[in-house]
Amino acid sequence: MKTCVFAGTFDPVTKGHEAVVKTCLSLFDEVVIAVGVNAGKTPLFTKDERVEMVQKAFVGNDRVKVQTFDGLLVDFMKENGYEINVRGVRNVDDYKYETEMFLYNTDMYPDLKTIYIPANKDSAYISSTALRSLYSAGGDVSNYLPENITEFVKGLLKNK
Amino acid sequence: MKTCVFAGTFDPVTKGHEAVVKTCLSLFDEVVIAVGVNAGKTPLFTKDERVEMVQKAFVGNDRVKVQTFDGLLVDFMKENGYEINVRGVRNVDDYKYETEMFLYNTDMYPDLKTIYIPANKDSAYISSTALRSLYSAGGDVSNYLPENITEFVKGLLKNK
Amino acid sequence: MKTCVFAGTFDPVTKGHEAVVKTCLSLFDEVVIAVGVNAGKTPLFTKDERVEMVQKAFVGNDRVKVQTFDGLLVDFMKENGYEINVRGVRNVDDYKYETEMFLYNTDMYPDLKTIYIPANKDSAYISSTALRSLYSAGGDVSNYLPENITEFVKGLLKNK
Amino acid sequence: MKTCVFAGTFDPVTKGHEAVVKTCLSLFDEVVIAVGVNAGKTPLFTKDERVEMVQKAFVGNDRVKVQTFDGLLVDFMKENGYEINVRGVRNVDDYKYETEMFLYNTDMYPDLKTIYIPANKDSAYISSTALRSLYSAGGDVSNYLPENITEFVKGLLKNK
Amino acid sequence: MKTCVFAGTFDPVTKGHEAVVKTCLSLFDEVVIAVGVNAGKTPLFTKDERVEMVQKAFVGNDRVKVQTFDGLLVDFMKENGYEINVRGVRNVDDYKYETEMFLYNTDMYPDLKTIYIPANKDSAYISSTALRSLYSAGGDVSNYLPENITEFVKGLLKNK
Amino acid sequence: MKTCVFAGTFDPVTKGHEAVVKTCLSLFDEVVIAVGVNAGKTPLFTKDERVEMVQKAFVGNDRVKVQTFDGLLVDFMKENGYEINVRGVRNVDDYKYETEMFLYNTDMYPDLKTIYIPANKDSAYISSTALRSLYSAGGDVSNYLPENITEFVKGLLKNK
Repeated sequence: MKTCVFAGTFDPVTKGHEAVVKTCLSLFDEVVIAVGVNAGKTPLFTKDERVEMVQKAFVGNDRVKVQTFDGLLVDFMKENGYEINVRGVRNVDDYKYETEMFLYNTDMYPDLKTIYIPANKDSAYISSTALRSLYSAGGDVSNYLPENITEFVKGLLKNK
Repeated sequence: MKTCVFAGTFDPVTKGHEAVVKTCLSLFDEVVIAVGVNAGKTPLFTKDERVEMVQKAFVGNDRVKVQTFDGLLVDFMKENGYEINVRGVRNVDDYKYETEMFLYNTDMYPDLKTIYIPANKDSAYISSTALRSLYSAGGDVSNYLPENITEFVKGLLKNK
Repeated sequence: MKTCVFAGTFDPVTKGHEAVVKTCLSLFDEVVIAVGVNAGKTPLFTKDERVEMVQKAFVGNDRVKVQTFDGLLVDFMKENGYEINVRGVRNVDDYKYETEMFLYNTDMYPDLKTIYIPANKDSAYISSTALRSLYSAGGDVSNYLPENITEFVKGLLKNK
Repeated sequence: MKTCVFAGTFDPVTKGHEAVVKTCLSLFDEVVIAVGVNAGKTPLFTKDERVEMVQKAFVGNDRVKVQTFDGLLVDFMKENGYEINVRGVRNVDDYKYETEMFLYNTDMYPDLKTIYIPANKDSAYISSTALRSLYSAGGDVSNYLPENITEFVKGLLKNK
Repeated sequence: MKTCVFAGTFDPVTKGHEAVVKTCLSLFDEVVIAVGVNAGKTPLFTKDERVEMVQKAFVGNDRVKVQTFDGLLVDFMKENGYEINVRGVRNVDDYKYETEMFLYNTDMYPDLKTIYIPANKDSAYISSTALRSLYSAGGDVSNYLPENITEFVKGLLKNK
Repeated sequence: MKTCVFAGTFDPVTKGHEAVVKTCLSLFDEVVIAVGVNAGKTPLFTKDERVEMVQKAFVGNDRVKVQTFDGLLVDFMKENGYEINVRGVRNVDDYKYETEMFLYNTDMYPDLKTIYIPANKDSAYISSTALRSLYSAGGDVSNYLPENITEFVKGLLKNK
């Protein structure tokens, strides 16, 4: 059985993340969505909110598994015996960042296999960072979220 | 069973191609190496030489299958029922080219799944194009070829 | 009255060109589509075919004017008293190329004003060059052409 | 009458901004300089100082109008019935950022027309951000400001 | 006698810095390593720790001289009569940043000569910034430091 | 004595080349301008014309030496005992190309030292390739050539 890991902060989950997970499901038997919990970062949504968001977004799909991790992704993967690291790549800057990380990760975990999933034209410009900016400037981010969590995220945002 | 396709001109096969195929073998059950036979291009090595090169490079591995194709890669994949397209991506320009192709391919074959495999630091600068330039300027390309085809390629080059 | 020039080889006209012209029409009073006739290039479509293609694509719009030019675009513009040069920019490589040209053009014609029109997500990957490759590999390019010239271009391609 | 909007933080106004406005004036009938007032940002110059800076830089030109806006630029433009958004683009990173914004803006305001004005070689490396760094390291930024506000900005900086 | 300056924050010194200094020593008679002391930044290592790190990394080489500077590098160079500014360039983003700085520096100090030293494949992905992130996520950065300061840096990190 | 090599096709010599050589002269004792004579290329100017052009451009400077080479630059450098390879870098694409070459060259000649000289704002957009295009479209290239060869090149062009 092939298991891949798709890690991120998911602050919030976007349609772009959703598309990557769908591709993962057609490539591998199981997808672990690894929600990063970096002490140093101050996300808009709490760890619990982000985990719940991911669970709701992929609810009913028993080949999707949600886990959290702290520290280095490669340490999390090594400890769990995961070897396939899937990265969504939306643009040249994503590509450059991911490739630098890939080189460090390969040094630290030589058995790691890293693959990039390119974004289709409808999600290539959607990033969690941009959605947070859009939200903080008073914009409506609903169209960029997976359809089945739109209401849930709206509810969370009311209390921010 | 998951089968992926890794297509190219392989003019010649390089250590970079070899690394991509190794990663494919750890991700999927079978790898089809699809050797492109574009009428418009004039490769340094003939179609038969390139097919033999690929076969020799991965000889003994029964999960690697070599096929040729003419015309569009997506047409070849559709006709054979292949759905996973693996692309080696060595640098920003590869990334940009592949992503443009990915968008066209997705229009023409919506079921296609495309993934990129980043090059490690030892093969990120190796391209068939650069090796042909190096060769034509009198340089030695042996170090950039898979070890088990070095002698075979040297033999072919003697007659060019 | 403000007149802008949108120049290119239009080999063939694409939906991307069509989108740029539409934006031009909302910005300025008149758009001159300048079809380049470079002796050095060997286009897929003849000069007359390309001119007819542009005319048919924008037929009925009396604010669109079609002209041909040979040699440098800035010389053509100077001779006709045109001062606004509109360039469609689809990606980073277009941007870099156009900016180099902009610097040369500004040296040669200081009164020139150059503006870039970014491509929307549905046409950012469409280029005449890619369409010619797609065609020569046996692909169908119809979806990437302005709707009202699809049949006309198909007819021309039958005789290529 | 065609009105375009040129928005920014103008912290401070630079020769690059001045060049963009000059090009706008040759393209359109009126230029609205929209000074952004983002609660989240802490600019070096106050909102009032930045508005005064812009007014002084283009004083005497009755085709230049200065307004402020908070929140999303597209909301400001919609509310005022403005449809032409002019962006100065100095380099590849500007291009990439603006194109991401263009895609979001087009989703939110389909009637918006966005154009980019490339920077000439003398202002392509001038950004407000770089000038603030230069100033904070003890450098003299005068040469990068519009000539008629050099003294005014020097006066403001004395009190920072 | 030709003296070059290699400036940075060195927070911490990396194998990449070490490689640049080695190249400098084969090009010029003397290398001044200029350790930046920006009041605005909060480095992981103190100024004294960074100076000591640089000294230890190049100990025994009397053609390497360590100095500190505050404010603009060009002011430091002018005051000391230094004219050759060496910059390590690891990737496209370094290149773009350094070239913007080069244009400002040339305006402020026309006699300045700036050269870039490209990173070899083993250090092109090593940056102080990445090492600090790696460290803060619990990773081991030893392999990316000059060998003769590995223990010294480990000792410093114990107290962070 | 430090000798550096500045190699190229010089088809034709430009103000950009002139600026690189001037910087070389302030960095090193001697500059070898190595004029490439690739059998595969068909330059606008003959080998003899290009050599004469370089000689005339730097006439009277006895620290500039002109040589020709065929085949690989690193072979030429090794044979002559040259170790410092200077490359002019005008933009991101130059940077990427040169860095790929640097990696190959380092494999083939580990003692080689490669440095890049960034172009100033007045020559960053000047390339021999662009000048040949400009010329073939009927443009005047004089302003982009070193002043003391303008007439000489004009004379050569009359016979092309």
